[in-house]
Amino acid sequence: MIANKILVIGLGLIGGSLARALKDNDCCSTVLGNSRSLDTVNKAIQREIIDAGSHDLPVLLQQLEKGDVIVIATPTLSVRAVLQHLHDAVLRGVIVTDVASVKGSVVQDVIDVFGSIPSAFIPGHPIAGSERSGIDAANPALFLRHQVILTPLENTDQSAVNVITRLWQAVGAEVSLMTVAEHDGVLALTSHLPHMLAYTLVDTLAQRSQNNDIFRYAAGGFRDFTRIASSDPTMWHDIALANRNALLNGINDFTTHLKDLRNAIENGDGKHLYEVFSRAKEARDYFGDLYSRRQPEKDI
Amino acid sequence: MIANKILVIGLGLIGGSLARALKDNDCCSTVLGNSRSLDTVNKAIQREIIDAGSHDLPVLLQQLEKGDVIVIATPTLSVRAVLQHLHDAVLRGVIVTDVASVKGSVVQDVIDVFGSIPSAFIPGHPIAGSERSGIDAANPALFLRHQVILTPLENTDQSAVNVITRLWQAVGAEVSLMTVAEHDGVLALTSHLPHMLAYTLVDTLAQRSQNNDIFRYAAGGFRDFTRIASSDPTMWHDIALANRNALLNGINDFTTHLKDLRNAIENGDGKHLYEVFSRAKEARDYFGDLYSRRQPEKDI
Repeated sequence: MIANKILVIGLGLIGGSLARALKDNDCCSTVLGNSRSLDTVNKAIQREIIDAGSHDLPVLLQQLEKGDVIVIATPTLSVRAVLQHLHDAVLRGVIVTDVASVKGSVVQDVIDVFGSIPSAFIPGHPIAGSERSGIDAANPALFLRHQVILTPLENTDQSAVNVITRLWQAVGAEVSLMTVAEHDGVLALTSHLPHMLAYTLVDTLAQRSQNNDIFRYAAGGFRDFTRIASSDPTMWHDIALANRNALLNGINDFTTHLKDLRNAIENGDGKHLYEVFSRAKEARDYFGDLYSRRQPEKDI
Repeated sequence: MIANKILVIGLGLIGGSLARALKDNDCCSTVLGNSRSLDTVNKAIQREIIDAGSHDLPVLLQQLEKGDVIVIATPTLSVRAVLQHLHDAVLRGVIVTDVASVKGSVVQDVIDVFGSIPSAFIPGHPIAGSERSGIDAANPALFLRHQVILTPLENTDQSAVNVITRLWQAVGAEVSLMTVAEHDGVLALTSHLPHMLAYTLVDTLAQRSQNNDIFRYAAGGFRDFTRIASSDPTMWHDIALANRNALLNGINDFTTHLKDLRNAIENGDGKHLYEVFSRAKEARDYFGDLYSRRQPEKDI
């Protein structure tokens, strides 16, 4: 048992998957769930994703005691509004974590709302997902063998870190620790930048083509390459704004490299092209081998 | 029977797959194969990918008669060197087609070598492939339900077009006709540009990271997004140079859109971001449905 009660706020893909996985693995006596949508709460109860729940967050918060856990699983820019309800629970010793894809903005929200970082607030990010979203996509195996990054701060309570680590391990994930800045820098490059490129490519092509006929001649490589452009627009709107500086940095770096490649094509510099393509293939094949040892399931 | 003898020049992924598929479907009495590598020719014979073959192209060409077919399946920029051997065969009435990913450069090579386009030369391009390359990746099912684009010219002999159309249909492909310029414009956007972006992204990240550790935290969306960066560097070197103008056009267009997105992120223009992401998701979901009606096999 990781805690008596665990409350998951936000029952989308991540929140719904986590809630069900916590139930399946007997991590606590009760998994509570909150969504602003009453329909989603009812669906979550019917499908046994949560034990009980409500769209009324304050009512649920009153049920929590010292040592219980809150997981905030809303879109990144909605975390702040949720935090404003959590003062009393935090004072009672409830441990709080989140799953937002950007950690710097969440930490700033916590400072703005609480005045400082409560020692039992553990910023976290499961690197798992899907281009599908919402509770209908919930899947308790979503975190199996996936990385979860926690970014504890200087004053963070180690025992609270241990609880959140055990929580993620219980649903099959591997937990790593990083600083907030490291996390946001790495994810800007490996996740946020690729999503911006996929969205931009699909939008560029859609605007070029009169009626999507152009896509008829795009084969599977293109399909895989652009799959992440089907991801939830609200989530990525939030991430792009929340991780602005690291993402701008990544876009600038990518743009410089693309400009070099463009110039090599224009100047017929085959040597430069062959070097870039070979170097990239070598790196991709290297980490492709790493990935093939993980589960084949799709995630973002 | 499509022809008495069919000679496949170049026994890589496409040539090897086609040769074996032609044999499996009894398309001709003899499938001949040519590769500059004697090892590859021997392997192709041992694995029954071809009926007979040689690394000596002129010897094979002497065996062809009127109505036989030559398929040039070498990398794009090697087509020209092959064409220089084909004068006599073309004069005897042998039909010639190719599989290069760029059609404008091949047509120019044909004009340079022959002085004009022989009426029995049919430029073609099967939109199928894999990030794997070489004869070891050969797969006779590679073309099933995949598009093959033929780009006949004004003086092209219709009966020769019919022969090549039947050849591709016999191995399971769907044949479309386009002009050379249409083909190169569409493929620049749906295939060549995405490959340039994938190569550039992986190379950007590999140069940023000291030791590829950054890739540990990249999950499946990134894996799919960058899979095409494992493709054969020689092939893509050739394509990038051969389709220079259309590709530069695509890179310029993409760069403009990426710059707009970058500015929206910098200026906190959430409305612009949400619009781009929603529009792209809508287009991706629309053509994603188209794709899901095809085979799930990976291809480029």
